[in-house]
Amino acid sequence: MHEPSFGGSEWLYLKECLDSTFVSSVGKFVDRFESELASFTGAGHAVAVVNGTAALHIALKLAGVRTDDEVLVPALTFVATANAVSYCGATPHLVDSEESTLGMDAARLRAHLVSQTEQRVGSCVNRATGRIIRAMVPMHTFGHPVDLDGLLAVAKDFNIAMVEDAAESLGSYYRGQHTGTFGLLGILSFNGNKTITTGGGGAILTNDPELARRAKHLTTTAKVPHRWEFVHDELGYNYRMPNINAALGCAQLEQLPGFLESKRTLFERYRDAFAPVPGVRMFAEREGCRSNYWLQTLLLDESIGGRRDELLAATNAAGYQTRPAWAPMHTLAPYSSCPQASLQVAESLQRRIINIPSSAVLAREPSP
Amino acid sequence: MHEPSFGGSEWLYLKECLDSTFVSSVGKFVDRFESELASFTGAGHAVAVVNGTAALHIALKLAGVRTDDEVLVPALTFVATANAVSYCGATPHLVDSEESTLGMDAARLRAHLVSQTEQRVGSCVNRATGRIIRAMVPMHTFGHPVDLDGLLAVAKDFNIAMVEDAAESLGSYYRGQHTGTFGLLGILSFNGNKTITTGGGGAILTNDPELARRAKHLTTTAKVPHRWEFVHDELGYNYRMPNINAALGCAQLEQLPGFLESKRTLFERYRDAFAPVPGVRMFAEREGCRSNYWLQTLLLDESIGGRRDELLAATNAAGYQTRPAWAPMHTLAPYSSCPQASLQVAESLQRRIINIPSSAVLAREPSP
Repeated sequence: MHEPSFGGSEWLYLKECLDSTFVSSVGKFVDRFESELASFTGAGHAVAVVNGTAALHIALKLAGVRTDDEVLVPALTFVATANAVSYCGATPHLVDSEESTLGMDAARLRAHLVSQTEQRVGSCVNRATGRIIRAMVPMHTFGHPVDLDGLLAVAKDFNIAMVEDAAESLGSYYRGQHTGTFGLLGILSFNGNKTITTGGGGAILTNDPELARRAKHLTTTAKVPHRWEFVHDELGYNYRMPNINAALGCAQLEQLPGFLESKRTLFERYRDAFAPVPGVRMFAEREGCRSNYWLQTLLLDESIGGRRDELLAATNAAGYQTRPAWAPMHTLAPYSSCPQASLQVAESLQRRIINIPSSAVLAREPSP
Repeated sequence: MHEPSFGGSEWLYLKECLDSTFVSSVGKFVDRFESELASFTGAGHAVAVVNGTAALHIALKLAGVRTDDEVLVPALTFVATANAVSYCGATPHLVDSEESTLGMDAARLRAHLVSQTEQRVGSCVNRATGRIIRAMVPMHTFGHPVDLDGLLAVAKDFNIAMVEDAAESLGSYYRGQHTGTFGLLGILSFNGNKTITTGGGGAILTNDPELARRAKHLTTTAKVPHRWEFVHDELGYNYRMPNINAALGCAQLEQLPGFLESKRTLFERYRDAFAPVPGVRMFAEREGCRSNYWLQTLLLDESIGGRRDELLAATNAAGYQTRPAWAPMHTLAPYSSCPQASLQVAESLQRRIINIPSSAVLAREPSP
């Protein structure tokens, strides 16, 4: 589905890391990776952590999410988006997607909030549950930016903090600005199947220096700096990215522009190849957006959506790795009783999406 | 304080890992590392995870720790032991250490439980708080095994599950059996300062195949195996060790016997060197125990305990990294109001412990 490519300085940096013996929680590659991530994305600050899930957990805590809050999450997402809400003791409140972005639908969300919530002392309260809706976590599906203008307006109008789940969208832009830098905080993932990988890894992005300082503190066991004393001034987490994984990240980041170019080329080839096929189309970036085309996405027409599993079985049997979108959150046991809006678009999309082989390296093979 | 040593197959295995492109959540080194850890420790099963803190979190969940429970934790430990309890929504209940092991004192714990708890429907209840004391987490301090016979008897008599925090004691044995394999579950850490390192990493040990299966499931987002579907049947965690870190672990594990021998030699040199110095002694393994001598430990007499900080300042200023034991949990803001037993031994030890440079590589230098 998505194979990483190690054709750059990976060896050099890993060797430098081992030779220095600083493979773990001390070492220069973590600082360098954070600085280069901030520079690439244009975020004020980046804090490298063990994975995207950990990044989301801490970003939500820093956005003020507490026990018994609710957090708006797309029903159509990887389960980590909802899990991070659970780790805060809060409850995901599932909302619908839109066909043009595959992500949270701002207009439908606004209508839902108008009908289901009220403002109390500057907070948005779900009237049915009495709980505060503290944050929203739009996710840029398969690298395609959500409708940020629309969602930022909803966030502002209803007093809801935005944490952007940009796990899939490193190298994706909305009106020329990198995804993950619009909300109060954003997060990235460098899992093995992502556009660049650190083995396992993630990052928290923010433009607020105080939130960045807090993110670093909370992800490093909340230890107060001292040459030898072990004082921790609040409940912290062991979420720091090891230096050896950051070394891999630095080498991968150098190749990101090339990876993005290859993935765009691959999209164009797929688009042209599928153009004559009735009932399917390659999902393409919207106007004003630039997608990283992380996972190449075929969208089936409603009329043939019922044949999705047949196509998945045939392609996998033939040796081509294909996959559907995730099972929507409300169909999973741990989230089946969460508060939810109407989810008809998410359900429809889930029946019709097929991701097809997306590795950057595929674009380097000659066209048939 | 403790520098890792990479003189084995680290480079070979990292290269193999990168060449295979399986650096992340799929790959053979994770399976191999788990199998070799089980073999080395004699545990029935080992599950590799991102770090020792994550291992403790999941081990406590599997031991049945739930919101509003209490968990017995030594006051004198690294903060992760207490933090993992907090992640479960439970409260650490702090107990005292004994001078002869630096770990939980079984006799004092038994007396505390006799006076402060009662049995209700097969559970040990703290009378003062009304909460169930679900588990105990003895920690093998600096690699020295606790009094497992005494603590296992307390656990049995009071219906309390034992989760062993063996983060520091890979290669340490109690009556010939590896630490971390006595309790219902045990955990290891492979942080950069540990006896072997994976950059960042940890493992859950257990002899119970069903607990091992549950540990693997919970640490891999509770995903139900399927060729392409994304179904998660409970709240899971993204705690899997990346394959690239496991590759490092396999190479390190091959060198563990040599590291242990070097650390023992280093202890013997320190012991002989400090023997003539009045008021200090090197902390040595107890009869029936074999320590990995992870961190070499000087114990000051009470009479000169007041000079600890002076010694720390002088040695650090002279370029020798030394450190005290951790600030006891009840002196940290997040744990200052936890239930606690009398902690006088832990407090005394904390005033008198100094850890001195402990890297295995130091033993290879010629004696003066």
